[in-house]
Amino acid sequence: MDPLLAKAIVVAASAVGAGLAVIAGIGPGIGQGFAAGKAVEAVSRQPEAQGLVIRTLLVGCGVAETTGIYGLFIALALLFFNPLVNLL
Amino acid sequence: MDPLLAKAIVVAASAVGAGLAVIAGIGPGIGQGFAAGKAVEAVSRQPEAQGLVIRTLLVGCGVAETTGIYGLFIALALLFFNPLVNLL
Amino acid sequence: MDPLLAKAIVVAASAVGAGLAVIAGIGPGIGQGFAAGKAVEAVSRQPEAQGLVIRTLLVGCGVAETTGIYGLFIALALLFFNPLVNLL
Repeated sequence: MDPLLAKAIVVAASAVGAGLAVIAGIGPGIGQGFAAGKAVEAVSRQPEAQGLVIRTLLVGCGVAETTGIYGLFIALALLFFNPLVNLL
Repeated sequence: MDPLLAKAIVVAASAVGAGLAVIAGIGPGIGQGFAAGKAVEAVSRQPEAQGLVIRTLLVGCGVAETTGIYGLFIALALLFFNPLVNLL
Repeated sequence: MDPLLAKAIVVAASAVGAGLAVIAGIGPGIGQGFAAGKAVEAVSRQPEAQGLVIRTLLVGCGVAETTGIYGLFIALALLFFNPLVNLL
């Protein structure tokens, strides 16, 4: 079989896989938006607590971001240092 | 049949599987964001409880993270130490 | 038909199946995050109940985790001791 066709199949599937991977970002997007909404509510009620609120928001959103970064990492791995082509 | 085509089919499916696996991150993203929002609300109401709130938030988010890590693990397994190619 | 092609089709589908299986983790991620948020709310209101709250959170999250572990188990079974190849 033509090695070029084999490579093309793997590389094409990697493109689909990379696109699927970043769909993970739906979660952090919703979650962090909810947290941001609660932060807005909190600072409008207690403006003097703004520093504390923002700090807590950033800690929480940093944690919520992780799974989005997992998706990004898998997508980048598929696109830029594709380990699968070497398996052929 | 050409062994190269067989390998290409399996490796291509692994790329799609890896992308699908990290979609699991949607859940932790939403959940942790909700928890972060509740933490923001809590510290703005009881700033003196901040340490306790952040600690509880991190314990809860650590538990919620697990299924996201399952997805990442399956994706990494498919990309970097693919056990399926050896089944051919 | 070439037995190698038959195997390749099954193994390729197993890779996609493994990726799909861990998407189950969306549920526990959302649920545990919700529970964590309620725990945060609870400890900020009754800091003296922290031990009780955390223990209750962990019991609840242990139960919520199960379906995520089901997904992980199916994914691991497909990847590491694939029972389907022997059916050919």
